[in-house]
Amino acid sequence: MSTSINLAVIPGDGIGQEVVAQGLKVLTAVLPQDVKLETRQYDLGAQRWHRTGETLPDAELEALKHHDAILLGAIGDPSVPSGVLERGLLLKLRFAFDHFINLRPSKLFPNTATPLAGRPDIDFVVVREGTEGPYTGNGGSLRTGTPAEVATEVSVNTAYGVERVVRDAYERANSRPRKKLTLVHKNNVLVYAGHMWKNIFDKVGQEYPEVTTDYLHVDAATIFFVTQPERFDVIVTDNLFGDILTDLAAAVTGGIGLAASGNINPTGAFPSMFEPVHGSAPDIAGTGKADPTATILSVALLLRHLGYEAEAVRIEDAVSADLAERDGTFRSTDAIGDALAARVAG
Amino acid sequence: MSTSINLAVIPGDGIGQEVVAQGLKVLTAVLPQDVKLETRQYDLGAQRWHRTGETLPDAELEALKHHDAILLGAIGDPSVPSGVLERGLLLKLRFAFDHFINLRPSKLFPNTATPLAGRPDIDFVVVREGTEGPYTGNGGSLRTGTPAEVATEVSVNTAYGVERVVRDAYERANSRPRKKLTLVHKNNVLVYAGHMWKNIFDKVGQEYPEVTTDYLHVDAATIFFVTQPERFDVIVTDNLFGDILTDLAAAVTGGIGLAASGNINPTGAFPSMFEPVHGSAPDIAGTGKADPTATILSVALLLRHLGYEAEAVRIEDAVSADLAERDGTFRSTDAIGDALAARVAG
Ligand SMILES: CC(C)[C@H](C(=O)O)[C@@H](O)C(=O)O
Ligand SMILES: CC(C)[C@H](C(=O)O)[C@@H](O)C(=O)O
Repeated sequence: MSTSINLAVIPGDGIGQEVVAQGLKVLTAVLPQDVKLETRQYDLGAQRWHRTGETLPDAELEALKHHDAILLGAIGDPSVPSGVLERGLLLKLRFAFDHFINLRPSKLFPNTATPLAGRPDIDFVVVREGTEGPYTGNGGSLRTGTPAEVATEVSVNTAYGVERVVRDAYERANSRPRKKLTLVHKNNVLVYAGHMWKNIFDKVGQEYPEVTTDYLHVDAATIFFVTQPERFDVIVTDNLFGDILTDLAAAVTGGIGLAASGNINPTGAFPSMFEPVHGSAPDIAGTGKADPTATILSVALLLRHLGYEAEAVRIEDAVSADLAERDGTFRSTDAIGDALAARVAG
Repeated sequence: MSTSINLAVIPGDGIGQEVVAQGLKVLTAVLPQDVKLETRQYDLGAQRWHRTGETLPDAELEALKHHDAILLGAIGDPSVPSGVLERGLLLKLRFAFDHFINLRPSKLFPNTATPLAGRPDIDFVVVREGTEGPYTGNGGSLRTGTPAEVATEVSVNTAYGVERVVRDAYERANSRPRKKLTLVHKNNVLVYAGHMWKNIFDKVGQEYPEVTTDYLHVDAATIFFVTQPERFDVIVTDNLFGDILTDLAAAVTGGIGLAASGNINPTGAFPSMFEPVHGSAPDIAGTGKADPTATILSVALLLRHLGYEAEAVRIEDAVSADLAERDGTFRSTDAIGDALAARVAG
């Protein structure tokens, strides 16, 4: 834990700007007086791309390396072809900084709306692999645009990459009261990658005799997410399955407005990056309707990562308390940020 | 519509045997007297594999070609390494018989339990591609079992394969009252396959001016499946996304016990194959607890495919009526089959 934080801020597109402003407000409010917070904003995203054609120039990638952490709002705009900013900026950062742990906690807070009848007791965390799988950009297309086109996408998986994320997930499971870890894959169809994941999962498991394990195919896992989400404690899974499952998890725990995430490089070789799971929601940008809570909870994950555990907990408790008192009355993005800043400062 | 049906039956593993027996019972009851039903049972699945090491020998594959259709129970058993029967039997059939339409209707029947609060009005059909994508078995592993292992899975997509399933989905959407078609993919990350899908989807759409279309990333689609499933009418998607989404769809519409499917080759070059979406459920095999309704609804899809529309509707109506009268009292697999057979005969 340092006495200064040198933070990179990438507000990005759409509501990204608005929610990041609230995240910074709460971060400033929660930090002890003697911790010096420096921030540098990076102008990256759709506007930059329209202006200069750049997504993430080398100079900025280099500059980003020297921060303690990155706070990101959201990336993506309908005016930019799908994939340009996602691959050229967001995924480029995750890959360049080797964010192999994509951490996504899911918790059904009191008093929040879930689409599930019976309000099950949900409190699990998905450890999503962040640097491999179908996300590598490996693939191509031949005779593009013709009736004879062939397009491939290659999921690349290495024992090196799988073991490190699986080990991290065991560590997390081992430190939680229920000590339960579920591997999600599809090893009855994706036999090469799936068997490698399962073998490594079983092998590393021998070092964690106190952790109870199970395995689910991804299709079956989605069933349990809606019928029995309380069965999950820690889930470890591949990049694409993790993407799908964490949106579903967000939906059943009260919506994407509350889902936080961390793209973590636990080695510290590069800065980790924290962002809400939601996208840029261009349809509500500028209306004050965006819920900044997911970003604020991402700030909590950021603080925890930098060693400010007490401050992280203060934010999480503030969110719990704030949600418990919400009565359905509309509060603007700003108002929610103010309320949470007041709570953590108090 | 022929006056005889020459049906291949593959009961398979676990509850497969039990549910297929009920499917045949209802099929016999619903068919007009003058339609001659011939069935041949194929002994394929876990037991066969243990006995002979075979999953689907050439002679049987050849024999299966000469049937009008195939009714399959379920494939898979924990005593067989994951993937052996799935790849060697189930997927082998889907690929050999070019089942490019994997049709999976989802409907929330009256009086059935859904995990969703508010019981939304769900009635959509997923048209899942069945012969490409990450299911091709293309991939491999290098230095298997060592710390330097690399495992790949290649998603193969062709304009030929995508266009035919997309066209089928437009036809289905066009013939339904709401005329709405949603493409689900992940074209912001899987840019090669995703853009090809989207381009073909847009191009074919020009021939169906009355069909309203939209596009969703697969992660976002899972959110709508639980928060707003009534927004969907027809969904077209890739093999893997379709696998995941249809289990989730089954869960929100009252469970995997009711979800039917057809692996269809609309050209008629090879027999189509009908099966419940659920697996072999070895934990309840032999207990009489398996719900045969999914298989019986798959028989309805089979009849529709062979031109017996009135009989298909009779089965679907019988299931609706039966579900409406279920009061939670336990009924065995056999009892449900008997009840439905009586209704369709009546
Ligand atoms: C925007 C997109 C590239 C991204 C992903 O697929 O990882 C998003 O869905 C997420 O989950 O962070
Ligand atoms: C058993 C398995 C190979 C199969 C699939 O993945 O297609 C099943 O999950 C299904 O949905 O029919």
